[in-house]
Amino acid sequence: MNTATSPTAATTARVIPPAPARIGCPLADVDTPALLLDLDVMDANIAQVHGRAQRAGVRVRPHAKAHKCAAVAQRQIAAGAQGVCCQKLGEAEALAAAGITDILVTNELVGMAKARRAAQLAGRIRLAVCADHPLQVQQLADATREAGTCLDVLVELDVGQGRCGVTSASAAVALAQAIAAAAPGLRFAGLHAYHGGAQHLRSPTERQAAIAGAVVRAREAVAALAAAGLPCPTVTGAGTGTYALEAASGVYTELQPGSYVLMDVDYAANTLAEDSAPLGHALFGWCSVISLRPGQAVLDGGLKAFGVDAGLPRVLHPGWQVKGISDEHTVIVSTGADAAPLAVGDKLRLIPGHCDPTVNLHDWLVAIRGETVEAVWPVDARGAMF
Amino acid sequence: MNTATSPTAATTARVIPPAPARIGCPLADVDTPALLLDLDVMDANIAQVHGRAQRAGVRVRPHAKAHKCAAVAQRQIAAGAQGVCCQKLGEAEALAAAGITDILVTNELVGMAKARRAAQLAGRIRLAVCADHPLQVQQLADATREAGTCLDVLVELDVGQGRCGVTSASAAVALAQAIAAAAPGLRFAGLHAYHGGAQHLRSPTERQAAIAGAVVRAREAVAALAAAGLPCPTVTGAGTGTYALEAASGVYTELQPGSYVLMDVDYAANTLAEDSAPLGHALFGWCSVISLRPGQAVLDGGLKAFGVDAGLPRVLHPGWQVKGISDEHTVIVSTGADAAPLAVGDKLRLIPGHCDPTVNLHDWLVAIRGETVEAVWPVDARGAMF
Repeated sequence: MNTATSPTAATTARVIPPAPARIGCPLADVDTPALLLDLDVMDANIAQVHGRAQRAGVRVRPHAKAHKCAAVAQRQIAAGAQGVCCQKLGEAEALAAAGITDILVTNELVGMAKARRAAQLAGRIRLAVCADHPLQVQQLADATREAGTCLDVLVELDVGQGRCGVTSASAAVALAQAIAAAAPGLRFAGLHAYHGGAQHLRSPTERQAAIAGAVVRAREAVAALAAAGLPCPTVTGAGTGTYALEAASGVYTELQPGSYVLMDVDYAANTLAEDSAPLGHALFGWCSVISLRPGQAVLDGGLKAFGVDAGLPRVLHPGWQVKGISDEHTVIVSTGADAAPLAVGDKLRLIPGHCDPTVNLHDWLVAIRGETVEAVWPVDARGAMF
Repeated sequence: MNTATSPTAATTARVIPPAPARIGCPLADVDTPALLLDLDVMDANIAQVHGRAQRAGVRVRPHAKAHKCAAVAQRQIAAGAQGVCCQKLGEAEALAAAGITDILVTNELVGMAKARRAAQLAGRIRLAVCADHPLQVQQLADATREAGTCLDVLVELDVGQGRCGVTSASAAVALAQAIAAAAPGLRFAGLHAYHGGAQHLRSPTERQAAIAGAVVRAREAVAALAAAGLPCPTVTGAGTGTYALEAASGVYTELQPGSYVLMDVDYAANTLAEDSAPLGHALFGWCSVISLRPGQAVLDGGLKAFGVDAGLPRVLHPGWQVKGISDEHTVIVSTGADAAPLAVGDKLRLIPGHCDPTVNLHDWLVAIRGETVEAVWPVDARGAMF
């Protein structure tokens, strides 16, 4: 093997921006822009989703790509989660360094540099990764043989997302056989069957139809694996928009919701099924008014504080709405004569449009209980993109 | 003054993700996703824009919010720039810590915590900030009095952007008088007159009309200041889309283009004036194919590697185009039977839609010369949002 394909430099310590708050300080003193995490709401969201999974008899493995924060992951695990999911190997390394010991990377790893890092990490925690191509399996097998470690590998099955994943039960069987043949370095651990496209279908009936299709494909693959003599211990998938459906499917054994813990404007726009209670907004941008004119205020957080791929943030101040956003500013305008007053220096909350890319912009989560800062948590896996 | 309004925690050293490349390694070995900076193209862009400013007899103070990187700023200064602009005080602190000694923060600072940080920084470098409200001036005056330092303050004048800034020449005079009255802590340093809305008007005539209006407003304010006995040493503004117009105005003394050094899809969509040469794309996303099916490939960089507020990135592989993007993936599809082949593990370049928010997602710039890594530079001010 060519070592020139492993260009990873040494891990580097660097000064990151200071935290915008101190533990115990009142919310009004938190510097801006910052990201607030309401702990009471977060705890209620965790209790609601984990409780429903528990009643259905399925495991929960929350997706940490939403929050990237070991302190949040530890609370999810304390509330019964099996471990967490990550979307990147670098996220898994960061959370493992912060004490998380059971991680599924719900993504394909390509290249010997990443395969070797995975093999190393598998020597320290319980690690699983996904595959949808024989090259990935070959590289992981080579790397675990070198490292003398054992790695769980799931076959990603496309159940409607149309992105990664094998597209047939027979392809799933063939890849699972390749994984099993690489024992003892690799272990076939099951199917990753996530339907991302279903999460933001707005009506419950659309989501039901999409997940019904996913369940059919997952069931076919499990049956084909069984017919080939390959037990499938785990079928994992689901998100905040559909987790109750996978939980009730009888096929999925593990749920991967991520955004439920934080929520955002995009998920709140889903119409809930009759048997579901709404989740609360736990994540807020916290911005100051830095410029003011009649009917318009400019806030000090923009595109570098809010992910806008799923729409603009929503400002929480009566009679005001977001007009536009630029790199470091959000412009809000009053919607009528009864708009609540504003002054330069006032601080406001905004609900992000999409929580995952928003958290990824911040180095710190300011955890509040009521109007007091209870903790300031690093976003451990921020920027851990490779 | 209430010290509870200064909640800034101690600066914190933390491990950041390792660099995706080593100096001297071939481009093919740079891990993905990463951000590439083509040094030959960057140098040509700097020469073109600085040369035009020099011929017009105006200073250049490039906006470092585009690249957030001290190494790039140093090259701009070596090529004649007066110093740099930042959009956030935290960016200025980060670049000052990396050796940049002349910085204009083109934004309003609100709150005593920020005013005190500015006063401290003004004791170490030549620092200027903007104001558009008496409260900001009062806080800066109090902070510089406490610190015993001297800070340059420019009045921001709204010349068409409709965001921050005073909206009349008389208001500019009144605020400049307040600044001047706070001597010796504050010094009235001129006008910040940036028309952001003009930068991406697609046709040269639209941009000319917008900047003609900006020039009228700036000239009125300069005249009103002179009539009030206030010299205006600096009128600063302009961006990559319009800098030649401000340079030729006879009113602007300093230009602030930022994106010119990197370029992006959005700026490349402008139709150039007849007397202008195109700037080159120096910034590229660098991604691997991690999953493949007929006519479709999935790349390992998504919303957490590319800012998409101004549109999707553009992939540079013949016969392929970007179909969609999600948190950690970009899906590309072939446009016909003559599409260049792709295999799992292949690495591709993409041009970001908008350079500023894209750079802000990355901890490292991989500086290449041809097909070799010449340097790996930290994005010093990444995330320095407050």
